[in-house]
Amino acid sequence: MTTDDEVQPVLLALDWGTSSLRAFLMDAHGVVLRERSSAHGIQNLPEPGVRGFEAAFRALCGDDIARWPHLPVVAGGMVGSAQGWTEAPYITCPADISALARQAAVVKSGLGPDIRIAPGVLYDPADGTPDVMRGEEIQIAGALALHPELSARACVVLPGTHSKWAFIEDGRIVSFVSYMTGELFAVLSRHSILGRLMPTDGIRETDGSGFSRGLADARKGGPGDLPHQLFATRTLGLTGRLPHAALPDYLSGLLIGQELVSGLAHLAHTPGAPLVLIGDGALCRRYQNALAAFEVSPAAVLENTAPTGLFQFAVAAGLVAGQPAHF
Amino acid sequence: MTTDDEVQPVLLALDWGTSSLRAFLMDAHGVVLRERSSAHGIQNLPEPGVRGFEAAFRALCGDDIARWPHLPVVAGGMVGSAQGWTEAPYITCPADISALARQAAVVKSGLGPDIRIAPGVLYDPADGTPDVMRGEEIQIAGALALHPELSARACVVLPGTHSKWAFIEDGRIVSFVSYMTGELFAVLSRHSILGRLMPTDGIRETDGSGFSRGLADARKGGPGDLPHQLFATRTLGLTGRLPHAALPDYLSGLLIGQELVSGLAHLAHTPGAPLVLIGDGALCRRYQNALAAFEVSPAAVLENTAPTGLFQFAVAAGLVAGQPAHF
Repeated sequence: MTTDDEVQPVLLALDWGTSSLRAFLMDAHGVVLRERSSAHGIQNLPEPGVRGFEAAFRALCGDDIARWPHLPVVAGGMVGSAQGWTEAPYITCPADISALARQAAVVKSGLGPDIRIAPGVLYDPADGTPDVMRGEEIQIAGALALHPELSARACVVLPGTHSKWAFIEDGRIVSFVSYMTGELFAVLSRHSILGRLMPTDGIRETDGSGFSRGLADARKGGPGDLPHQLFATRTLGLTGRLPHAALPDYLSGLLIGQELVSGLAHLAHTPGAPLVLIGDGALCRRYQNALAAFEVSPAAVLENTAPTGLFQFAVAAGLVAGQPAHF
Repeated sequence: MTTDDEVQPVLLALDWGTSSLRAFLMDAHGVVLRERSSAHGIQNLPEPGVRGFEAAFRALCGDDIARWPHLPVVAGGMVGSAQGWTEAPYITCPADISALARQAAVVKSGLGPDIRIAPGVLYDPADGTPDVMRGEEIQIAGALALHPELSARACVVLPGTHSKWAFIEDGRIVSFVSYMTGELFAVLSRHSILGRLMPTDGIRETDGSGFSRGLADARKGGPGDLPHQLFATRTLGLTGRLPHAALPDYLSGLLIGQELVSGLAHLAHTPGAPLVLIGDGALCRRYQNALAAFEVSPAAVLENTAPTGLFQFAVAAGLVAGQPAHF
């Protein structure tokens, strides 16, 4: 180890998803000393197969490993999926950080270090359909470390391509629900008739009336109504009720509104649980606006809790002796 | 006019949709003497713009027009849309065949004859979102001519890309609801993560367990649940609960089930109205199976009622003196 750094890193943490790889060099308090990222998500590797994972890891972290060859390395996200570097099979709810650490997968990098990869989580209710998450469990672990008061009972909402509503009790994920909100928006805008009247220049900044109307219509919907309600994205444009520039916002409001109608119905089963949003700032603001229309205020809005979650994972795995960060 | 035909045609009726053009030569009783079709739907014309419509019409019907230059010509479907040969603006509900005829658009073909084009129909409830149909109103007119007992009160269901549930009272379309069922199935199978686990060889014949499960899950869903339920198309495959070959059927069952949950809730407002299915045989059988799971039997299943509907349209427009067919 070199001695010319003021603060020694104790962990290299990788947040390795579908479209990007992010590496965090962390100190003994879980503080991020340095962040790097590349576009080498698991669906965009520089070479096919395992060699691609090696090459992406070397390109982003090779100099760090050369400098600190004994630095523990952990990873979370799609890198542990069946299409990842090595598969870390799902663990079942109720799931906590200890279970994630106990059932981690390990892959030996050609650069030297073992990389400990977090599993995803499966929720498998007896009378329902199974649901899965991979990556979000790390974000949730980070949120609970940053806000220990949430561990007792909380609803953690992670908006995105496949939004998650995770219900926390006693520091464990007891159940969760996925919504294909982001992917539905993208696929319907690009590939269905609903995109035909939308502006092609990507204009999204409007007065918000489209979004509000979408939310209001979603609240009015009964069971099974969505495949009908979506068609209004076309008819409101055809009949001039909404300007074409407002149609993307209408569709967004309709889809986020549906997610909120269903998610808040789940939340009603655990009354009083605080709702926490985790995600990109602009997307969280959109969800905050939507929640406000439903008269719900999140108890906290957190941006990226993955580094803290990966640190917790490393602590639980016995790789790091440091204490969780408290900000 | 020639005199060497046993039966003289009195009408040339065009069913001109997005992906095909069909021409029916009809006698004074509304019987189809001859049918021809081409792939020159309005999105697949041989030349751009108005010239494309002329060329497609000439290619399919030029010899008929040369032989019977005074034969009335009517058309229905997307040919009357804003992207059509000429726009026949929507008429509003309640709408009947007389209103369609009164507000038809006329385009003069370079071949000689005027072509009378049926309008589409707009349903514009004061407290809801507008809905539109174009082409289905002709199919409905045909169904009511073939089954006059339905004119008093009926629910006509036309499954498809954008399924319609139309409510009939006193021979008029009083309201209707569109569902993007077919388009959602196509777009999600081809362009979303849900298609990833599906067989690529188009296998759809399974034991039907995927379809039944999709229907059952749709019935269990609450408001807003669809964006969550869709994700089960992935998780049931990931966890091995359904074979991958059954996933298209599961998605189909989920989407058709949602349509039925919502459509039958609308139908409950007009209790006792018989339900009629109109459409392609295989698709109608799929809907019949789905309806059976909901303990509903259609009063009739009709294949293609467009020629009869176009004949009614021509009669209402005063172009044909013949009587409607009764089979």
